Amino acid sequence: MSTQPPPARIGDTVDQVDTPALLVDLDAFERNLDRMQAMADAAGVDLRPHAKTHKSVDVARAQMVRGAAGQCCQKVSEAEVLVHGGIDNVLVSNQIAGDAKLSRLARLARRATVGVCVDDAGNIADLSRHALAAGVQLRVYLEIDVGMGRCGVPADAAAVALCRQVIDAPGLAFAGIQAYHGKAQHIRGAGERAGAIRHAAAIVRTMLDLLSAAGIACPSVTGAGTGTAQFEADSGLWTELQAGSYAFMDADYARNLGPDGDPDTRFEHSLFLLATIMSTARKGTAICDVGLKSTSFESGLTLVADLPGVPYAGPSDEHGTLVVDAGQSVSLGQKLRLIPGHCDPTINLHDWYVGCRDGIVERIWPVSARGAFF
Amino acid sequence: MSTQPPPARIGDTVDQVDTPALLVDLDAFERNLDRMQAMADAAGVDLRPHAKTHKSVDVARAQMVRGAAGQCCQKVSEAEVLVHGGIDNVLVSNQIAGDAKLSRLARLARRATVGVCVDDAGNIADLSRHALAAGVQLRVYLEIDVGMGRCGVPADAAAVALCRQVIDAPGLAFAGIQAYHGKAQHIRGAGERAGAIRHAAAIVRTMLDLLSAAGIACPSVTGAGTGTAQFEADSGLWTELQAGSYAFMDADYARNLGPDGDPDTRFEHSLFLLATIMSTARKGTAICDVGLKSTSFESGLTLVADLPGVPYAGPSDEHGTLVVDAGQSVSLGQKLRLIPGHCDPTINLHDWYVGCRDGIVERIWPVSARGAFF
Repeated sequence: MSTQPPPARIGDTVDQVDTPALLVDLDAFERNLDRMQAMADAAGVDLRPHAKTHKSVDVARAQMVRGAAGQCCQKVSEAEVLVHGGIDNVLVSNQIAGDAKLSRLARLARRATVGVCVDDAGNIADLSRHALAAGVQLRVYLEIDVGMGRCGVPADAAAVALCRQVIDAPGLAFAGIQAYHGKAQHIRGAGERAGAIRHAAAIVRTMLDLLSAAGIACPSVTGAGTGTAQFEADSGLWTELQAGSYAFMDADYARNLGPDGDPDTRFEHSLFLLATIMSTARKGTAICDVGLKSTSFESGLTLVADLPGVPYAGPSDEHGTLVVDAGQSVSLGQKLRLIPGHCDPTINLHDWYVGCRDGIVERIWPVSARGAFF
Repeated sequence: MSTQPPPARIGDTVDQVDTPALLVDLDAFERNLDRMQAMADAAGVDLRPHAKTHKSVDVARAQMVRGAAGQCCQKVSEAEVLVHGGIDNVLVSNQIAGDAKLSRLARLARRATVGVCVDDAGNIADLSRHALAAGVQLRVYLEIDVGMGRCGVPADAAAVALCRQVIDAPGLAFAGIQAYHGKAQHIRGAGERAGAIRHAAAIVRTMLDLLSAAGIACPSVTGAGTGTAQFEADSGLWTELQAGSYAFMDADYARNLGPDGDPDTRFEHSLFLLATIMSTARKGTAICDVGLKSTSFESGLTLVADLPGVPYAGPSDEHGTLVVDAGQSVSLGQKLRLIPGHCDPTINLHDWYVGCRDGIVERIWPVSARGAFF
C-alpha cells in the first residue's frame, strides 16, 4: 500500500540512488533480450517471456518490440496489469480456481487474447461457464506433468478426454499443451539438464501421438525456462518458449554450467541490488541495508558484486552482514551492488526498477504487477 | 505499485475471501495485545511495539490505545507512514546512513517525537547537522552490542565518549541505550534464552555503570523481542520493550519452549494465510496458491493449520505442494488456513489484512508501510 517514491531521478549517478534499490544494467539487459529472441528465431519457435519474473509492463514492451509472441504470467491479476498496459496476448500458465478469479479472467478476454491452463474436468466446465457469461472465447492449454511433479496430468487417454472436453466446451478453444519442467531449470550440469528435457520430450511425444490418433490437432506446445530453453527449442516438439529469468539472471542461475562444464555465461547479470553500508562498528563485519524485505534467500545467499570474495553472511529483516577482513576497506555510507539469489521473488519486493547506462540513471520503471498474486 | 483491491468485503464469510489473503483472528490478536501490555504494566516498564512486524497504522493504534508508549520501526519510511497515520512517538531502532534519509528523518521530527540509534561518531555529526537544518531535536540512543553481533558498539570508554558526543551535539538529545539481542529470540529452551539475556544484562549493567561514573544520566534502556521480553522486563535494567511478533506469532516462534519444557503458548497464532487448492491432478499431492510471493520461507516452512499432519512440502513462486495421503480428502477450490513460517517478511508481501471474528470479516486494514524499506 505504501507506494514509495522512486529512489532516483533520471540523470542521477548510480551513487545518488537511494537504497535499497533494484538497478538494471540496461546494456546487459538489452543484450539478454536480444540473445533469447535470436535463439528462438533461429530455432523457428515463438518466445512468450514469463512476466512472473519481471512483473513490468515496460519490460514486457521491450520484449514485444523484439518479436515476442505475447507474455506469460501466473496470476489473473498479473494478466490484468499486462493487458491494461497494452499487451494484447497473455497466457496465464497456471490453473485458476474459484469464481472470483474465473470471472475476472473471462472479462479480460474481451480486451486481449487470453490463455489459461487446465488439468481438471470440473475446472474446464467452470471456465466454459464463465467464458459464456462474459461472451468471450478463452484459449485453453492442457497441462501435462513432464517431470515437475506439481500441476498437470499424465499423458494418457484421460488427458485426451480432457482435450476433447475443451474442444466441445462452448466459449473455449483448445490451444495446445502446457509442458513445463520447472525442476530441470537449476540442474547444474548441462548434460543432466538436457537429459531431463529429453525425458520431458518423450512425454510430450506420447501426448502428441495420442492426440493425433484421436484426430485432435494440437496447435502448440508451450513451456521451457531460462535453464533449458535451448533444449526445448532444439527438440522439434515445443513451439513456444516461456523463459523469464534470462532478462536479469541471478546467483542461482549463475551456478548452472554450460556444455563445456564451465559456468553458462550466455545470459549476463543485469539486475543488481544497490545497498548502503549502515554500520561498521563491529570489527570484521560491515552491515548493509539489504535484508529479507528487499531480497529473497530461499535459493541461496545474495552475492556482493562490487567486493568479490566478501561474503554476504546472512540476512535479518532489514540488515545484511558482510564479512570483511582486515585488508578490505568498507566505509559507512558506501554503496555496493549485490546480486540477488533469486530474481523473481526479489523483484516482487520492490516498487521500482532503476535502469542505468554508463553509470547514469536512464529509466525509472514501476514494478507494475508487484503484489499481484490474485 | 499494483495496489490490488482488498480480497474481501466487510461482512463476508471467511470462505468468500479471495486468496492468497492475510487473515487475522481478531479475538486472538486482541488477547495477544492485552497480554503483552499487561506483562509490561506488571513489570513497570514501557511497551513500544515494533512496527517492522505489522507495518500497519491500524495495528499501531490498537497497541497505543492499550497503553503502548510509542512505536518502534527500522526505517525512516516506516516512521513516516506511522507519523502520517497519527502515531506521535516513533523510535527508528536502527542506524540511518546517507543525507537523503537523514533529511527525511529530521523533517519528520517537526511533527512527532522521533528517536534513532547510533554507533558511529561521524553518523552522530551527520544527525546533528540535519537536526539543526530542520530546526528539530532528535532523540538519540547509543546502540550497544549485547550479543546480536550486528550493529552497536561494545560497552566501554569509547561508548561513553559517543554518548558524550550526543549530549554535546546541537539538535540531539541523549535518550538512552538500545540493547537488543535478536539472536536470543529463537533459542528454543527457556533456560538458554534466559541465560542469553542474563549475558546481555551484564553488558547493559557495565554500560550503565560507566555512564554513571562519567556523570551521565541514562534516561532509558530499550530492547527485547517476543522471545525474551519477560526476561528483560524482569531484569530491572530495561525500561522499555520492543516486541513485535507477539501480536501475530508464527511457526518459528511456536517452536520456542516455555520454562516447563512444553511449547510456550502465552501468545496465540492470530495470523493465517488463506489459500485455495488449485490442482488435485496428481495423486498424493494437492497444490495450493500460496508460494514464495505470498509467504516467507527463510525461517522454515509454512504449516497447514486446517489439516494437521498434512505437510506443506515446499514452495515455488506461486504454488505450494501439500502432501496428502489416501485417507485425506482435499478438493479443488477448497480454502485452507496456513501458518506462516516468519510473520514479518510474510506480512510485507501483502497489501491487506482481513480481520475476522466468528468466521465473519470485520476489518480490512491496509498494510500501510508495505514496501517501506527506505
